[in-house]
Amino acid sequence: MIKAGVFGASGYTGFETIKILTRHPSVELVFATSESAAGQSLSSLYPVPLDIPLTAAADAALEQVDVVFCCLPHGASMDAVRQARQAGVRVVDLSADFRLANAAVYEQWYSTPHQAPELLDEAVYGLTEIFRADIRRASLVANPGCYPTSVLLALYPLLKADLLDPDAPIIADSKSGVSGAGRKPSLKTHFVEVNENLSPYSIGQSHRHVAEMAQTINRLGGSGERLIFSPHLTPISRGMLSTIYVTLRAARPAEAVYQLYAETYTGEPLVWLLPPDHLAAMAHTQNTNLCALSVTAVNARQFILCASIDNLGKGAAGQAVQNFNVMFGLDETAGLV
Amino acid sequence: MIKAGVFGASGYTGFETIKILTRHPSVELVFATSESAAGQSLSSLYPVPLDIPLTAAADAALEQVDVVFCCLPHGASMDAVRQARQAGVRVVDLSADFRLANAAVYEQWYSTPHQAPELLDEAVYGLTEIFRADIRRASLVANPGCYPTSVLLALYPLLKADLLDPDAPIIADSKSGVSGAGRKPSLKTHFVEVNENLSPYSIGQSHRHVAEMAQTINRLGGSGERLIFSPHLTPISRGMLSTIYVTLRAARPAEAVYQLYAETYTGEPLVWLLPPDHLAAMAHTQNTNLCALSVTAVNARQFILCASIDNLGKGAAGQAVQNFNVMFGLDETAGLV
Amino acid sequence: MIKAGVFGASGYTGFETIKILTRHPSVELVFATSESAAGQSLSSLYPVPLDIPLTAAADAALEQVDVVFCCLPHGASMDAVRQARQAGVRVVDLSADFRLANAAVYEQWYSTPHQAPELLDEAVYGLTEIFRADIRRASLVANPGCYPTSVLLALYPLLKADLLDPDAPIIADSKSGVSGAGRKPSLKTHFVEVNENLSPYSIGQSHRHVAEMAQTINRLGGSGERLIFSPHLTPISRGMLSTIYVTLRAARPAEAVYQLYAETYTGEPLVWLLPPDHLAAMAHTQNTNLCALSVTAVNARQFILCASIDNLGKGAAGQAVQNFNVMFGLDETAGLV
Amino acid sequence: MIKAGVFGASGYTGFETIKILTRHPSVELVFATSESAAGQSLSSLYPVPLDIPLTAAADAALEQVDVVFCCLPHGASMDAVRQARQAGVRVVDLSADFRLANAAVYEQWYSTPHQAPELLDEAVYGLTEIFRADIRRASLVANPGCYPTSVLLALYPLLKADLLDPDAPIIADSKSGVSGAGRKPSLKTHFVEVNENLSPYSIGQSHRHVAEMAQTINRLGGSGERLIFSPHLTPISRGMLSTIYVTLRAARPAEAVYQLYAETYTGEPLVWLLPPDHLAAMAHTQNTNLCALSVTAVNARQFILCASIDNLGKGAAGQAVQNFNVMFGLDETAGLV
Repeated sequence: MIKAGVFGASGYTGFETIKILTRHPSVELVFATSESAAGQSLSSLYPVPLDIPLTAAADAALEQVDVVFCCLPHGASMDAVRQARQAGVRVVDLSADFRLANAAVYEQWYSTPHQAPELLDEAVYGLTEIFRADIRRASLVANPGCYPTSVLLALYPLLKADLLDPDAPIIADSKSGVSGAGRKPSLKTHFVEVNENLSPYSIGQSHRHVAEMAQTINRLGGSGERLIFSPHLTPISRGMLSTIYVTLRAARPAEAVYQLYAETYTGEPLVWLLPPDHLAAMAHTQNTNLCALSVTAVNARQFILCASIDNLGKGAAGQAVQNFNVMFGLDETAGLV
Repeated sequence: MIKAGVFGASGYTGFETIKILTRHPSVELVFATSESAAGQSLSSLYPVPLDIPLTAAADAALEQVDVVFCCLPHGASMDAVRQARQAGVRVVDLSADFRLANAAVYEQWYSTPHQAPELLDEAVYGLTEIFRADIRRASLVANPGCYPTSVLLALYPLLKADLLDPDAPIIADSKSGVSGAGRKPSLKTHFVEVNENLSPYSIGQSHRHVAEMAQTINRLGGSGERLIFSPHLTPISRGMLSTIYVTLRAARPAEAVYQLYAETYTGEPLVWLLPPDHLAAMAHTQNTNLCALSVTAVNARQFILCASIDNLGKGAAGQAVQNFNVMFGLDETAGLV
Repeated sequence: MIKAGVFGASGYTGFETIKILTRHPSVELVFATSESAAGQSLSSLYPVPLDIPLTAAADAALEQVDVVFCCLPHGASMDAVRQARQAGVRVVDLSADFRLANAAVYEQWYSTPHQAPELLDEAVYGLTEIFRADIRRASLVANPGCYPTSVLLALYPLLKADLLDPDAPIIADSKSGVSGAGRKPSLKTHFVEVNENLSPYSIGQSHRHVAEMAQTINRLGGSGERLIFSPHLTPISRGMLSTIYVTLRAARPAEAVYQLYAETYTGEPLVWLLPPDHLAAMAHTQNTNLCALSVTAVNARQFILCASIDNLGKGAAGQAVQNFNVMFGLDETAGLV
Repeated sequence: MIKAGVFGASGYTGFETIKILTRHPSVELVFATSESAAGQSLSSLYPVPLDIPLTAAADAALEQVDVVFCCLPHGASMDAVRQARQAGVRVVDLSADFRLANAAVYEQWYSTPHQAPELLDEAVYGLTEIFRADIRRASLVANPGCYPTSVLLALYPLLKADLLDPDAPIIADSKSGVSGAGRKPSLKTHFVEVNENLSPYSIGQSHRHVAEMAQTINRLGGSGERLIFSPHLTPISRGMLSTIYVTLRAARPAEAVYQLYAETYTGEPLVWLLPPDHLAAMAHTQNTNLCALSVTAVNARQFILCASIDNLGKGAAGQAVQNFNVMFGLDETAGLV
């Protein structure tokens, strides 16, 4: 059994990670931390019959674990990750702290200095299907954001084959469930404000995930600066759908483009390419760790990609455990299907 | 035009009151207060094109108004009401501060001393259909709680006719929309916690509205202490349904009981008695100022009453304006239908 | 009082039209038809205390009315409209039957021959803010679809000023409440299938509203064939949000573009241009007859327009009554605010 | 591996049963039937990547299976069950067809003659925690209804200890998610009709589940005829909460009553008795196969029991598989936690 700890058990991401780990056949959960509920049980935070004791982070038994899942907010995660790495523990960090390769870029987008820049070189961006080889050897995986996971998995086949027109915008119109906004109460997440409403926010090139997506698009040879990204909050607890509008360099038959997707993702256990005449909806992936994709031709050069994930599954905890499985040489879907 | 002021514009009840007043043919809104948004416009708090300036309560022009609607939280309302009364302004208070006739009972249930006990005698309990005659002359109306409005309107015909078995429990199983919990963010009102959930709270005889309902049941000759009341939070923005189980002193034909309801409420413009074979649902009253009632016989002595109101309409702001209309001799439904 | 009839009272659009008309200060409702509920009252179809008798369309007293609102499904509407016109009655048709100017185009998109092509010349496309002058004189108004209303009001200032790059795609990513799908039960509108789901459908250039939008874009000097339109079904009863991505011919300051919108819509009582730093959400217009608009610059040539309407309000019945008000020289917002 | 077949794969109950069985460590799914989708795959009916072929019931390979789960509607189930039994196959029937011990009572409540009365003696009522010993030996298990499961598990400790006042009503006010109404489209399950609504139906003693509950209450020594049952439809996909009001024969300390529940359900893997100061909500059991219970004293003789289940989990498919596990001597929670 591999021994694991979780930092930040009280948020939705931490809770989901713990739920997956408690069913994982090869994992023993050694500790789970929560500053606000230290000394209590997980069942004091969530309506579940899981009597998992919660401890303060300072009391986390780092020396007893092989891996740590860090589910703290960005900014707060850096320090915990450094401590874990100093104790020789491998880390999957679900925050944004190690996703951007450059400390200056991080500081620009997150308005706070990076506290552990020496670890940035070590960090591997954990979009499993794209960077699996690096993840296998990684000591520190920066688990991707939910929006980037949906958008990048949809774009990847076109980027890899260098089919995208470098001068055309890549427009990602994304819709997210509310759990993506975290569990901290705010007017933005108040039931009455969210219910029967659908609202855009941080549209254009202002959301922090733009930086994360642009970095990866560029790394894959695309034009990250052409990305336009519009997130929307929807009255749904879990789920995410990205509708992505792209333009190819040159005309290409719809069948050939679909075939490219099929080839790219054949054998991928957690990517579900829908049949040609289907459209990915949130329901395809809710309460799963899958990403469902669909490809629709508008005309010979313009295509619409739909990508559906559960923002807490493939968009967070599910992909974190998938990365963990890869890091430790386990069946990649252990605990996940 | 009657000149009105609103204390507490930022909560759902205050906002709903303002919305009704701005459409009321005989009202001019002179001020609306909000401590947190003083100096801004109402449209900074809510997604509406209403450029109504908000002022601090201390700056409210009491000398310029005929009536004040007090939409502050309980505890905070007492002081504003006293000031308005001292300025000779008539008041409809939507808080709980003047609903209980006895200061000691108030302190027991609300865990705070009553600050204006001298006004308790003056206050008229504003369940319009039952206490209309007193409301007409009132200088201070204590607008009922949402749960009490639904339960008491359902019980009233049986109480008035003295048909209820004084030894049998009166069981009110009530379901409320989330706006009844107020706009202040909390985990209890977080979208993800409420959505796809239905949860009981303060069941039995522990909710504060038990005191308010028992007082009125007793006043009407019933056994208030037999009331069992179970509120439930539902994933709905606005609405309330109370399902009430009662036992009669003696067997009585279903038709006779229905007829009693029909006689009691004939001519009442805001009570809608459904036909005999229908059941009141939230949809009957959502976004209205109505109370919809249904009467169902289980057997000769046991009946089920269903009462539906919009918790912000007949359950709060709608009834407040109805009471105002009565107080000022206006058409009782002005601004309300 | 102007005498009105409604064909098709049983659908959501017909019901909403009737609700508005019963509160309209200058309208007397003479008849409302429903084939399935003829002989019953409106309250048998909907949970409202409106005892409006329903008749079969064949029994509609066309000779007694000045105007007819036709709320029948496309295909079924043509015949009723023709009869009304033959009786000399002015018509607002809420179906799609008279929106496309060309009978052949209609047949192509709706897969049925047009039954009343002789009326197509007479029909005025009822996007009030754009075609008000023609509507004033119209005997037959083709009320726009909900999606087109939101998209075209957002594009109109840019089209009018000829600022759009004719070679760039116009991408409208739209999200609709379920009432837009009609009241007829189907798996697509089953609560469990819709709830907690968000699903795209008919994306690209395949939805029927593409033809309607392209026609109007072309009429206004734009490149209708560049429109890409992706509707999504959302777990919301009423509401619509279109997020629209456009490219200008040439760089232009954000302030200038905003100013163009302000100038275009100043004085328009039912268009609400939000302040520069706000984004239109569904909540801005729910249960209203408004269209809320926001304008966001991505860069000097790319802009994102958000348009929010209530699909049953400005998207259907509200605009129908707005057009009626224009046709009959009434206050344009009578019954609507 | 135990070989299983499922009749009626297209409904929510059948689909949920298949989902559980495909993850069950000791089951091989041999066939799944659907008349409407015969020849297609399960993924044509539901948004899941499960390529399970569907066959017509007439083509079901009864001779190849050890057990059949019958998920057909009541009335349709009887015949399939008889065929399975004639083929020597053990059956868990999720319909209502074998729940009532008496064919005449069945006919009275279901308005159709019973087609297989000879099997009624053989059928064991599958409320696992109460009738486990009989289920172990059963060839035919009649899986309980969702409402009865929640109500009877809550009442059982009091019935077993004979504490209930036989002359007092037992009032069960139940709230159900919409999946309990089945997947067949109807106005009752249309999103717009259900959303933002909460509606009672068949209240008093008119719902079919009254017969099922009364039969079991009587069997356990109680007064089944005193049951009053009020179901409510709620805007929730999955979940059920029953709030139950009972009166004891004699005063009894709250602690003693709680202790009785603790003793009754200690060791039960799928019943979760909440701590004394907690109330069962739908969230405690959603997407699980648990029943969560809470016990609240109003006074010395009156108690409120709250019982929460997932209507498709412990309320249907979960309990069916639990019964199957008992029948075949497997770990009772195999596939269920």
